[in-house]
Amino acid sequence: MNIEKINIKAKANLINVLDSYKIIAEMNDYYFKLVKEKREFVWHKHPETDEVFITIEGKFKLAFRDKVSELDEGDMVVVPKGVEHKSIFEDVCCVMLIEPKTTINTGDAEGNLTETELEWI
Amino acid sequence: MNIEKINIKAKANLINVLDSYKIIAEMNDYYFKLVKEKREFVWHKHPETDEVFITIEGKFKLAFRDKVSELDEGDMVVVPKGVEHKSIFEDVCCVMLIEPKTTINTGDAEGNLTETELEWI
Repeated sequence: MNIEKINIKAKANLINVLDSYKIIAEMNDYYFKLVKEKREFVWHKHPETDEVFITIEGKFKLAFRDKVSELDEGDMVVVPKGVEHKSIFEDVCCVMLIEPKTTINTGDAEGNLTETELEWI
Repeated sequence: MNIEKINIKAKANLINVLDSYKIIAEMNDYYFKLVKEKREFVWHKHPETDEVFITIEGKFKLAFRDKVSELDEGDMVVVPKGVEHKSIFEDVCCVMLIEPKTTINTGDAEGNLTETELEWI
């Protein structure tokens, strides 16, 4: 049996392209994904699921319709299902996302930022 | 709406009792739990679910029947469902566990280490 020990920051160091999600682990029907981003995302929601963000390196802003949270390294937010949100990466930041394997990054706002074919690293 | 920003290490700093799981977040039907442990656990498995361990502070050993992994800060392991394992904490270490809300710490080896009533912090 191959049970891999995954160092999250070492996986982050493997990422050399921006704005593309990489799968690092799976637990039941959930993926753990890393992404390095520098962009402003689109407003969207996931009507079917909560979504977890954990900042691994750097910081970013997570906007809701009524407030903006700034997430520094080690900060985590659970976005409840159905809640509109938009991430804003003013500088490069590495985030870990935890969500069902079927979750699409842009949720109900499919468009040119939608990414459906994800690589493992 | 109250969407809390959770700093994982700040939550760990709130824990002043050993070997007792504290819930810090929920995502769908999963809990994120923190625990500070200094003990050798019992061999057990979770026949119904995978289980994620992430080391937050310190290090510990995760034993399988065929090997032992040493997990330092930032290391993560997904224990597949049905796989026997035992954690060994030689010094105090803080670990984050991610698993279904219904998962019991001792899995199929219920006994005096079983803990079913968990507090939120």
